[in-house]
Amino acid sequence: MRKVAIAGVGMTKFGKTDKSLVELFTEAAMEAINGSNIRPRDIQALFVGNCLGDFAEGQANIAGFLASELGLPPWTPATRFEGACATASVAIRDAFMWVASGFYDTVLVGGVEKILHMGTPLATRTFAMASDSKYEEFCGLTFPGVFAMLAHMYAHKYGIPLPVLKERMALVAVKNHKNGAMNPLAQFQKEITVDTVLNSFMVADPLQLFDCCPFSDGAAALVLTTGEKAAKMVDKPVYILGIGQGSAGSLIRQKDYTVMQSRVASARQAYRMAGVGPEDIDVCELHDCFTIAEIVASECLGFFEFGKGSEALENGETAIGGRIPINPSGGLKAKGHPIGATGAAQAYEIVRQLRGECGRRQVDGAKIGMTDTLGGDASTIVNLILGV
Amino acid sequence: MRKVAIAGVGMTKFGKTDKSLVELFTEAAMEAINGSNIRPRDIQALFVGNCLGDFAEGQANIAGFLASELGLPPWTPATRFEGACATASVAIRDAFMWVASGFYDTVLVGGVEKILHMGTPLATRTFAMASDSKYEEFCGLTFPGVFAMLAHMYAHKYGIPLPVLKERMALVAVKNHKNGAMNPLAQFQKEITVDTVLNSFMVADPLQLFDCCPFSDGAAALVLTTGEKAAKMVDKPVYILGIGQGSAGSLIRQKDYTVMQSRVASARQAYRMAGVGPEDIDVCELHDCFTIAEIVASECLGFFEFGKGSEALENGETAIGGRIPINPSGGLKAKGHPIGATGAAQAYEIVRQLRGECGRRQVDGAKIGMTDTLGGDASTIVNLILGV
Repeated sequence: MRKVAIAGVGMTKFGKTDKSLVELFTEAAMEAINGSNIRPRDIQALFVGNCLGDFAEGQANIAGFLASELGLPPWTPATRFEGACATASVAIRDAFMWVASGFYDTVLVGGVEKILHMGTPLATRTFAMASDSKYEEFCGLTFPGVFAMLAHMYAHKYGIPLPVLKERMALVAVKNHKNGAMNPLAQFQKEITVDTVLNSFMVADPLQLFDCCPFSDGAAALVLTTGEKAAKMVDKPVYILGIGQGSAGSLIRQKDYTVMQSRVASARQAYRMAGVGPEDIDVCELHDCFTIAEIVASECLGFFEFGKGSEALENGETAIGGRIPINPSGGLKAKGHPIGATGAAQAYEIVRQLRGECGRRQVDGAKIGMTDTLGGDASTIVNLILGV
Repeated sequence: MRKVAIAGVGMTKFGKTDKSLVELFTEAAMEAINGSNIRPRDIQALFVGNCLGDFAEGQANIAGFLASELGLPPWTPATRFEGACATASVAIRDAFMWVASGFYDTVLVGGVEKILHMGTPLATRTFAMASDSKYEEFCGLTFPGVFAMLAHMYAHKYGIPLPVLKERMALVAVKNHKNGAMNPLAQFQKEITVDTVLNSFMVADPLQLFDCCPFSDGAAALVLTTGEKAAKMVDKPVYILGIGQGSAGSLIRQKDYTVMQSRVASARQAYRMAGVGPEDIDVCELHDCFTIAEIVASECLGFFEFGKGSEALENGETAIGGRIPINPSGGLKAKGHPIGATGAAQAYEIVRQLRGECGRRQVDGAKIGMTDTLGGDASTIVNLILGV
């Protein structure tokens, strides 16, 4: 297997836009291509994540149209992936394999989503398709409900009084909004307080509005190439050290949702391939679709003991400057969550952190970073470990 | 790159079913797994094609649920692909790479679709999403219209009077229905005549009802493994000799739709990898979504000169027993077209042909076979070359 590097990266501003899916993705893709000091025709294959384009824009089968818009010739394979929120990360993992195996030298990978024009209620209902249609959707379960149950289970399992857990969950939102306020591409660039969260309206008890990430429009893209080529293309290549992917069925088939086995397995694969452990990770972008989700993820990835994530957070261990800074970009919570683009946007942030380009939100001296993306009820989990 | 083989294969009967997407796929998958003389737990990764499950069953993110239903453990990556009609073939190509590269030894790949409960008019309108939403869908174009235009272009370009071309197109349907009548898994197992086609109702001039393939419910699956392992698992492994994938943008960006560049490029890749040419192919399953589509595909793949495909067909060269038997399974036209499963079903037929298991529709002495799957307006094309 050859060493695989990320040369250029690109990302649109997250938030509402009038651009089409094709236009959005092309914007991010061209930034990644230009940042790699190559031309579109140097791209040998395209791997793209998109989750809800069929519903949002009546556009399925989008990969060929993206390839065409970028001017890629007809012998360029273009493939669409869908794995709910983990959509782009699945595409990245796959693109990695085509380069690592020696089949292609240079490929483009990323994700795109456009959903805000649907409005949050319809988007929430539509996106509930990512849970089990037969056993979960039919009883009216949407994702705020899934993660509300998780919060209750977590509080109960670890004997943390719900009001205490709620304050700690609020601190996730406070931290991520603080970070997002330093990210010019973030959807929300405004700090909030614990009171902002606790006074916001109830979505699914105990999750209030500010416990939930937004829907977003946006795109992100990466150019993957061999370590050798990347060193010639750019000053600071970032290497893919490890990858992992796990899967799970519906909630009733998962033994203990507070210890997501698909994520534990995925992270283990990534750590093993990279030859590092949680203690070696300098910065992490993980899947904070809801505040409780960040706490649980930080435990599944091995940063904290199970049941200790909320305390660690309260002690500032996940803040920029803390032991393991989590979501310096603002995370899904403040940077935004364009579903099919999120995994690529996480990798975008880690690449820029490892290059030391993140300005006020820079994690000093970061050498190894990790991404974590969760699709559906943890039915698709992908982890990447990147290093310089 | 390691040699990759297909061990077991599985396919459901095509046609209307009350089974769910998960149940359908599992049926085909278990046949492939059992036919490989392995257990589900020997599967290291799952690659699945599904095109319209979001609309048809409210099920996105289906890969994890399929993995769970098969009893695969949480460390098993499960990935969904979508590329319109080429959906399953894209998944197969990808799965091939993971085995060829040495990352996994044994993986499961296939596709599933369930659409008949939607009814053909709604299914046609929904599936139009696979064309360009911005420049094609909005003017009311659906796929019968796309291929009707192709028939007119073809007749005009090669100076074939439309009534003559229509009779030859009808012969595609007659041939494929004849073949389908010998396939116990086909949706239509009834022979028809040229008059059946020419007296059927007009769908999109010049395409009549029997020029069009049906929508179908169904699934197909393959177990891919290394050449070495396959030889221990089964008596007759079939090897993947070559693969290709091309892409294209909307129709207005394709120079000459009668000479689909994405398909020409994809086939060239597959031939080059396999080290064979069109003259070496003993049997082919190609994308006859409409009768004219079979004629054009047979030229793009190099079996006949451009403009000569309809004559060759009229002369019986594509019949079983002819020079290059095309669609002995009945093709999309008679076997059926469960969109996201079609590419896997084509590979299923070629594997069984190369094993000599096809009874009355067997192509005698077939050693090398080819599949061809077209997604959208040729925006995604995949070709496989298989051999024993």
